[in-house]
Amino acid sequence: MTQPLRLYELTGADDSCRFSPYCWRIRLALAHKGLPVETVAWRFHEKEAIAFSGQGKVPVLVDGDQCVSDSWTIAEYLDRQYPERPALLGDAALKATTRFINQWVADSVHPALARLILPDVHGVLAEADQDYFKRTREAAFGVSLEALAGQRETSLQTFRDVLKPLRSTLAVQDYLAGEAPAYADHIVFGAFQWARIVSAQALLAQDDPITAWCERMLDAYAGVARHTPAAAER
Amino acid sequence: MTQPLRLYELTGADDSCRFSPYCWRIRLALAHKGLPVETVAWRFHEKEAIAFSGQGKVPVLVDGDQCVSDSWTIAEYLDRQYPERPALLGDAALKATTRFINQWVADSVHPALARLILPDVHGVLAEADQDYFKRTREAAFGVSLEALAGQRETSLQTFRDVLKPLRSTLAVQDYLAGEAPAYADHIVFGAFQWARIVSAQALLAQDDPITAWCERMLDAYAGVARHTPAAAER
Repeated sequence: MTQPLRLYELTGADDSCRFSPYCWRIRLALAHKGLPVETVAWRFHEKEAIAFSGQGKVPVLVDGDQCVSDSWTIAEYLDRQYPERPALLGDAALKATTRFINQWVADSVHPALARLILPDVHGVLAEADQDYFKRTREAAFGVSLEALAGQRETSLQTFRDVLKPLRSTLAVQDYLAGEAPAYADHIVFGAFQWARIVSAQALLAQDDPITAWCERMLDAYAGVARHTPAAAER
Repeated sequence: MTQPLRLYELTGADDSCRFSPYCWRIRLALAHKGLPVETVAWRFHEKEAIAFSGQGKVPVLVDGDQCVSDSWTIAEYLDRQYPERPALLGDAALKATTRFINQWVADSVHPALARLILPDVHGVLAEADQDYFKRTREAAFGVSLEALAGQRETSLQTFRDVLKPLRSTLAVQDYLAGEAPAYADHIVFGAFQWARIVSAQALLAQDDPITAWCERMLDAYAGVARHTPAAAER
């Protein structure tokens, strides 16, 4: 049996509140490859706890004497290190089109979703993280968290519009990677898992094909994503 | 030598003005597979000329006794019919992620680009097509072509924002499909070729990574895309 890998995950006040979309990509990627993992709760103010990684953000993955950070770099590492296990990124062409999906989430989906749920994220954080989070996010978005909370209706329409290509794709195939999920699905689902864990807002219509795909992703890999409770259930 | 395939292409008043983004996908797809083609100019009012295809839109591809329409269906047909030639869509996972790119163009890129260039498209059409085009497009977009022409500055900013994930992807890899172009590139480049042929507007900054990729796509396959003159050069 492989020794468990160690994954540092962004966590809210409650130890079970592992909400980072980037960390979820890696939890799902590890499940996809069938690799055992021990997770470590990490909070924004605990910079020294991951200083050994040479940078200040999670996910950080420790695999024996190797340490890797940045979600895309970790996915590449896992495929390179465990080539005999199910592929995350696959061959060069699949990896290239998956990178486009990675960038679509970074440049279009996350910015639109953040405007909806940043106030909720602030609400789940440990007290020691809240000031840092509020200051850095308000600077990045050029707007106060209170103002964002007041714009939810407009932000929701924008978010749903951004999702159009995901919706029309999932109307004709079960997963972004085809008949079974792969890293393309982990990338995009990470965003919905982030929202699910921090926010009780209903972001999708019940009959949206994206809703059915989210349910499939929650069930995938023995339900690893569903195991973390949703904000709406707490 | 393979008998040339026949491709019906949407055409403006000038016979050389083959401007359809969907037809360009197939011209590039045929070049990618090294299949010879004879193109047939077709205009919106010539419905009877393609009635044999059982529908009313181009591209229509005739290959011996087979006839295929709809760009995605044609790409699938070409891979199935000519599996020994370079793949357009590849295996199931690559095809699935390429379909997401297809939907991103349909749902996000084309609508944003159309608002910029529909007045230019109207300008290149044969007189017999202009009323039909103006009526159907104004109904679809809920705005007059004259009003669109007056909103170019806003529409250009929206279009450039929509392109962010393409820009950040092409900043780190040469083609959407990786080291060499494939159907993912044909889909997206079709939009820029459409704009290039009908409009003299400068849509991209010179230092945009998308601009450099467009140049590579114009050079690809012995310059088949560059061979059709740009509006800015006419």
